[in-house]
Amino acid sequence: MADLSRLSLNTITVREQWSLAQCIEGCARHGIPAIGPWRDKLQEMGVAAAARQIRDAGLQVSGLCRGGMFHLPDAIADNRRAIDEAAAIGAPCLVMVCGGLPPGSKDLAGARRRVEDGLAEILPQARAAGVTIALEPLHPMTCADRSVLSTTAQALEMAERLGEGVGLALDVYHIWWDPDLAPSVRRAAGRIAAFHVCDWLVPTQDLVLDRGMIGDGVIDVPGIRALMEGAGYAGLIEVEIMSAQDWWRRDPDEVLRVVKARFAPMC
Amino acid sequence: MADLSRLSLNTITVREQWSLAQCIEGCARHGIPAIGPWRDKLQEMGVAAAARQIRDAGLQVSGLCRGGMFHLPDAIADNRRAIDEAAAIGAPCLVMVCGGLPPGSKDLAGARRRVEDGLAEILPQARAAGVTIALEPLHPMTCADRSVLSTTAQALEMAERLGEGVGLALDVYHIWWDPDLAPSVRRAAGRIAAFHVCDWLVPTQDLVLDRGMIGDGVIDVPGIRALMEGAGYAGLIEVEIMSAQDWWRRDPDEVLRVVKARFAPMC
Repeated sequence: MADLSRLSLNTITVREQWSLAQCIEGCARHGIPAIGPWRDKLQEMGVAAAARQIRDAGLQVSGLCRGGMFHLPDAIADNRRAIDEAAAIGAPCLVMVCGGLPPGSKDLAGARRRVEDGLAEILPQARAAGVTIALEPLHPMTCADRSVLSTTAQALEMAERLGEGVGLALDVYHIWWDPDLAPSVRRAAGRIAAFHVCDWLVPTQDLVLDRGMIGDGVIDVPGIRALMEGAGYAGLIEVEIMSAQDWWRRDPDEVLRVVKARFAPMC
Repeated sequence: MADLSRLSLNTITVREQWSLAQCIEGCARHGIPAIGPWRDKLQEMGVAAAARQIRDAGLQVSGLCRGGMFHLPDAIADNRRAIDEAAAIGAPCLVMVCGGLPPGSKDLAGARRRVEDGLAEILPQARAAGVTIALEPLHPMTCADRSVLSTTAQALEMAERLGEGVGLALDVYHIWWDPDLAPSVRRAAGRIAAFHVCDWLVPTQDLVLDRGMIGDGVIDVPGIRALMEGAGYAGLIEVEIMSAQDWWRRDPDEVLRVVKARFAPMC
């Protein structure tokens, strides 16, 4: 029997098909032991109701997606709400997509400072809530509009400067290409708070919404998983697939069956 | 009067509109002092005829695009032809898009070794011809299918291992996001063989063919130009814009007028 004990479903994988309540029920029915919700679906369901149903279904929570976006005007207040939501559903970490350049700006160094300042501002609340702030380096193709944190080493250095309560969320999609990946992950030992998997398709049709199912692309997922384990990460592994033209159009039970079939040998 | 003395037109900027002969004539007519041809157009025109017309027009050549693609079966023979072509038109460098993963492969480390082995194999011919091999780190979004060289530091380290006759071709489009850009460019002093400019559009609709005109995107072009100059680069600056939906559909004389207008204050 395939070992699914580390599998977590990131709910965006079936975003177009299922509500959060349906995701929770689906995970329980498919024997997927953990879930990683997105905030829009969580808010839609209601945080208290979601927390109760997740607990009643016996699911673990791998993390909450997502905080960050410090280039937007209301970022601090929104991140404070996100920390509360993460704590309410028992999420060990809040995954941070830290934000890009403010509208009209070309000041990349300034945007990076703004991210770090924003993180420092919300960090005391996160520490008090017991929610790890998990910095997710995003693929450099998202630098302008989503994340000025582009590499594992860069995110790690920021995490180290910020100190206790700050870790990394590492997604194979964002980091697989990095020539410094292996040494960076080794250096991140003790700081890895989340690990996400999917695959890079060739060709890739869209910079955000064309991720592939594990095994359908070119990423050496077992190799990167081994790097994570070498750095001591033994936690949950989230499958997170944003796929507007393919997986979001399929029967969600089929999606979960394929996730399970691909997860066991690859992850 | 705007200083265009360092401006070179990469011919792909008007690929859909003009032959190489028309590009040469257009540069001369617009007072653009240099040209960077692509090999398909060069071969279409004939290398000897192109060399003659470029010389007769009084144009400098900034480089030839492109060699590389070491993941393809006939790469070595094709790169040898490219070196001959570069020498024939007086190109000081052959820009190398080094290639991605071979079909079906997920072995990124192996692909990088294959690139370096291939470069080592053609390097004696390039040295003999007086053509600098200019390694171009490409944006990480092209890692799977175009270039396993993804950062300036990575390309520089490979250039240093290969030794004499190997430099870098740095394009703002590929390197602007890099958190290590400034120290990497400083370290590259003496190795920069080519500098290309365009811009990163928000949103970007296509991973290859949606580059922006200088000034229309988020890249701090003057800042990166200053980094290059700080590293001692005082050579030609190529404008290279692949834009299937916009600039390739415009009147080519308009394109060149806009290139000149944007180049002077930005580059």
